[in-house]
Amino acid sequence: MAPRYAPSLRSRLAPLLLFLQIGFIVIYAFCIKIERFDLFSLAEFQDVNVVVILGFGFLSTFLVRYGFSASGFNLLVAVMATQWAIILNGMESWYYRGHAGINLRSLVVAEMCTASALISIGAVQGKANPVQLVFIALLEVSGFVLNKWLLETLLEVQPQNSIMQLHIFGAFFGLTLAQIYRARSEQRFEKEKFDSKTGLFSTLGLVFLWMFWPSFNSVLVEDRIPGRKLGAVCGTYLALAVSAVTSAALSVLSSPKGKFNLMHLQSCILAGGVAVGVSMTAIHQPWEAMTIGFTAAIASAIGFRYNKIHILLAHQCQDTCAVLSTHGLPGLLGWLAHLVLQIRNCDDQTTAIRFAVFHICTLLLTLSLSLLMGMITGILLKWNFWKPPQDRKCFDDQAFWKVGSLLAVKTQYLAAVKCIYALKIISSICRYLTMCFFFVDLPIR
Amino acid sequence: MAPRYAPSLRSRLAPLLLFLQIGFIVIYAFCIKIERFDLFSLAEFQDVNVVVILGFGFLSTFLVRYGFSASGFNLLVAVMATQWAIILNGMESWYYRGHAGINLRSLVVAEMCTASALISIGAVQGKANPVQLVFIALLEVSGFVLNKWLLETLLEVQPQNSIMQLHIFGAFFGLTLAQIYRARSEQRFEKEKFDSKTGLFSTLGLVFLWMFWPSFNSVLVEDRIPGRKLGAVCGTYLALAVSAVTSAALSVLSSPKGKFNLMHLQSCILAGGVAVGVSMTAIHQPWEAMTIGFTAAIASAIGFRYNKIHILLAHQCQDTCAVLSTHGLPGLLGWLAHLVLQIRNCDDQTTAIRFAVFHICTLLLTLSLSLLMGMITGILLKWNFWKPPQDRKCFDDQAFWKVGSLLAVKTQYLAAVKCIYALKIISSICRYLTMCFFFVDLPIR
Amino acid sequence: MAPRYAPSLRSRLAPLLLFLQIGFIVIYAFCIKIERFDLFSLAEFQDVNVVVILGFGFLSTFLVRYGFSASGFNLLVAVMATQWAIILNGMESWYYRGHAGINLRSLVVAEMCTASALISIGAVQGKANPVQLVFIALLEVSGFVLNKWLLETLLEVQPQNSIMQLHIFGAFFGLTLAQIYRARSEQRFEKEKFDSKTGLFSTLGLVFLWMFWPSFNSVLVEDRIPGRKLGAVCGTYLALAVSAVTSAALSVLSSPKGKFNLMHLQSCILAGGVAVGVSMTAIHQPWEAMTIGFTAAIASAIGFRYNKIHILLAHQCQDTCAVLSTHGLPGLLGWLAHLVLQIRNCDDQTTAIRFAVFHICTLLLTLSLSLLMGMITGILLKWNFWKPPQDRKCFDDQAFWKVGSLLAVKTQYLAAVKCIYALKIISSICRYLTMCFFFVDLPIR
Repeated sequence: MAPRYAPSLRSRLAPLLLFLQIGFIVIYAFCIKIERFDLFSLAEFQDVNVVVILGFGFLSTFLVRYGFSASGFNLLVAVMATQWAIILNGMESWYYRGHAGINLRSLVVAEMCTASALISIGAVQGKANPVQLVFIALLEVSGFVLNKWLLETLLEVQPQNSIMQLHIFGAFFGLTLAQIYRARSEQRFEKEKFDSKTGLFSTLGLVFLWMFWPSFNSVLVEDRIPGRKLGAVCGTYLALAVSAVTSAALSVLSSPKGKFNLMHLQSCILAGGVAVGVSMTAIHQPWEAMTIGFTAAIASAIGFRYNKIHILLAHQCQDTCAVLSTHGLPGLLGWLAHLVLQIRNCDDQTTAIRFAVFHICTLLLTLSLSLLMGMITGILLKWNFWKPPQDRKCFDDQAFWKVGSLLAVKTQYLAAVKCIYALKIISSICRYLTMCFFFVDLPIR
Repeated sequence: MAPRYAPSLRSRLAPLLLFLQIGFIVIYAFCIKIERFDLFSLAEFQDVNVVVILGFGFLSTFLVRYGFSASGFNLLVAVMATQWAIILNGMESWYYRGHAGINLRSLVVAEMCTASALISIGAVQGKANPVQLVFIALLEVSGFVLNKWLLETLLEVQPQNSIMQLHIFGAFFGLTLAQIYRARSEQRFEKEKFDSKTGLFSTLGLVFLWMFWPSFNSVLVEDRIPGRKLGAVCGTYLALAVSAVTSAALSVLSSPKGKFNLMHLQSCILAGGVAVGVSMTAIHQPWEAMTIGFTAAIASAIGFRYNKIHILLAHQCQDTCAVLSTHGLPGLLGWLAHLVLQIRNCDDQTTAIRFAVFHICTLLLTLSLSLLMGMITGILLKWNFWKPPQDRKCFDDQAFWKVGSLLAVKTQYLAAVKCIYALKIISSICRYLTMCFFFVDLPIR
Repeated sequence: MAPRYAPSLRSRLAPLLLFLQIGFIVIYAFCIKIERFDLFSLAEFQDVNVVVILGFGFLSTFLVRYGFSASGFNLLVAVMATQWAIILNGMESWYYRGHAGINLRSLVVAEMCTASALISIGAVQGKANPVQLVFIALLEVSGFVLNKWLLETLLEVQPQNSIMQLHIFGAFFGLTLAQIYRARSEQRFEKEKFDSKTGLFSTLGLVFLWMFWPSFNSVLVEDRIPGRKLGAVCGTYLALAVSAVTSAALSVLSSPKGKFNLMHLQSCILAGGVAVGVSMTAIHQPWEAMTIGFTAAIASAIGFRYNKIHILLAHQCQDTCAVLSTHGLPGLLGWLAHLVLQIRNCDDQTTAIRFAVFHICTLLLTLSLSLLMGMITGILLKWNFWKPPQDRKCFDDQAFWKVGSLLAVKTQYLAAVKCIYALKIISSICRYLTMCFFFVDLPIR
């Protein structure tokens, strides 16, 4: 018979977190300094912070019993991954200069690496425990930083382009992972439900992602060429607007009764922003961004239906937050749009072919590294050492959160009676000290 | 017998949205370019974005079963209206220079035009379907941009003043519209209820509006005269603070049991910000802003009671979000305050009379255009072609949103069995390609 | 027999608020002007605004029936306290120059004084009515501004350090207050419960506090020494990240079943930010900030357990929002860290001793003033004039908010019938005026 309760994480999570955290502090103590100068504004950093912590965290609260886990584990995983990404990103500078610096730019870059990990986690949301989530995030960030470094050194991709592969890398890493880990769950999870009350929290997360996506896309665009940053902001805004309208139309069109489907909207409404993010440097006119937003919403909508029907039933791979249709397909589309636009802008054929070869290599490298890392992570994750939750405890806050308060009070009361005598002594000492100090007797019974 | 279900919007909404969206993309392709230079900061644009998308969207989630519609339709309508407003605002430049530019300033101006449409929609919230909402928004924005253009060319009103007529224009447009469309609903709508759970979402929207109102008011104030922008921010903050305190006092005072009324607070707490927004350029001292905030809260509170008692029962016109007391009356009060303050600041009588005449003409033009456009829109909206929801389906998410998920799964399962064979073939091709690519056999069953 | 309903606040709250508000307007009219020049950016002001209004307001919505009161009273108290703090902070300038100025910096300083009042109020949240809350806030702000002034004039503490005593001052003021007011409540309040639905709102508030804490800490740091502000932002971010991880580990470790405890997380997760805020000017390396975050989370976790067991049961003092562990202990730890780091950085012993003496005096002055003011406020608060809510009505929105809407409609209907005839006349006059104006008969029945 299966155990009634979810396995306790006390012996796994607490030591892991404390060990990693103390390790990070030691590494920071020896290698990382705060830099003096920085061209980044605080407001831009805050916008990215809102996207990563609030947006991604609240987007997956649509699961009826998984609100605390979705928002809480997101914060936990995000801060671990960000600390780790700062270390990894600083390794090159540490190797050459003896120390790495930390400033607003490096925090923003680290948070964007974290975003790719959070996208991956969306695919196994609800089916993995926090120990596994932290483990996934650290491996994913390592893979992504490696990918970024390879792109920048081997293929000479610009930083703002290489980091935007986060959507493609994150989505395919997450899908491979979900495929290998928990591939053969026979029936639907009973608690994987959508609720109209927590649905509004999810809408809130979505609205924040939608609002701050222009900042997220444009934050690393350098402003040396005037208007480049402005173009990124306006382009992203227009693409998001078009994909919001298009996905609303497609959602109504694909429902027999002509109703909106919140899950569908949530997975398609950001598609335009994702696609423009990947192809940003090649976009010069508003209509290009709008067309990309339009096609991205269509691709995402097709992906969403295919996803639900095919992947769920044929391959038993579950993609909780629909990362394929939200990030994977729009990311690929953005890559294609970048290729087409850049070739069209080229004057001579040699440059165009050269660019095309490099651009295709970028995609192949990203895809193969993300599939490889996803496979490795998935295989490691199957290990029973991590105490994965049983099927019945998936998608359930109660497996990880102390929700009821009555029992807790009773246990606390017993503990209180035990230690109350010890505390009385300490309290009287404190009281006398206070008395001596103020020369008054506070009315503490 | 009336039909049991709300009419399906599939044949109306999807074609309309796709047609408009493709039309917009075509217009943008021929007429609108991204500009090179811009003096606006991204943070200011984001603040206005928060007000328009998040604030207005979540403010009307107080209706117990209308949370998804309130927040979702707000986003849909806002992006349609903004795209349309950018086109309309750029027409003059397109006429003279052959193309119109888009930058952060034009986005902000367009979002403020959108805000006036969202105010109007507040008056018919819950009683119109999304097709009608999009239609209202496009007509309202057209009217408002026409009004703005007339004010700026005929009466030489400064842009920052002409755009602040958005409260007056939006409120009276919405009220006329609500009066003509659905004037004679005999009983209260059964689902127009307030709920304490979604009430907190509404409070969230209100708090965001409250916090970002100083940005919203000051965003278009030019900083050529030093301190002008700072004055607008401080003045708005103080007026909002005073009207929060005053409306709390009035809410307690007007309740026989001395309790707060959330609906009352929500409609009065922003009154100070609205009034200061309209009269901003004439305010030079903190106490002026505070006095305006004080009287605006009183006017709004009186308006709210009059609204609920008189308009609801005597004229059967329903004003769901109380736009009369939130935007209409405070807007008029701000107009009056502007007149009084400006005349007091004038040195000679001729200038004062000249200003008064122009200022009164501004109001008359705005009011008559908003009433006229509201009437036209209301008459067009009565057309049955739009398939308005029945009384029983008003204020109900279920009319427009697929909320239950069980049925959906079953239909998807049947569709899945049908196309599973087709997909098997594609999937095996994909698998073999993956195999060839990596020389490994992924453990896909 | 005890009365069934909570006492009506109509005769207390409304006059108090109106009197204070009109008084504030008069004072502002004579003493305070808007300044011309300001070096502060609007974005920084907005960030602090978000922390104070949204963060503190929604953090205490975890109480199941106290959501409206927690968020609404927070706004009310915050605006009263901010207006009062602006007056108090401007008094010195008014004395010497005849008038005080208001700009974004003075608004930010005033909001930070308000934050200390909101921390105090956290300790009596749910047990005091809004009249008492406003009274507490005004007294607390007066005490805090006095403390700040004494620190700056007597001990020559820099403004950015003196204002950061807000955590220590606020927490100990609140604890003393809670001890004296309502010390001997025999049983737990029946409605002081935690709910998983409103719990997500509380998480939202927490996430906003977490995200904008770097801005809150760094806003007053002067940027004359390059990198100082950047250091404050990065240090706060890292300390928050470390204390999030550490408090998650400790929360799991302290639960017998290895589960997370939301209340515990909420009270510990910000500890790092608080401690770094107090010790900010002495931090130069990332690992210092991280170590402070680590120890602050441990101190806060110990404080949380001690708090719940000891203070609740032994002394019958209730600390609703756990301000001791969230602000008190981390604040003291930050003070200690400042002392240790500064002494280590000193070159010669004389400077070190001199600094230590001044630093210890700072703490003693702050602590004694906060205990003294807390005691006075607590004694004044016991006065029955304030009509404190009965135990059964504590932690209940229904005592202060008109929640049900059915009854309200009925009363309004009766009132409507009474005044409907009077209104008919006014309405017909309005209608005829409208007719004359537009030469058309609007179809108003």
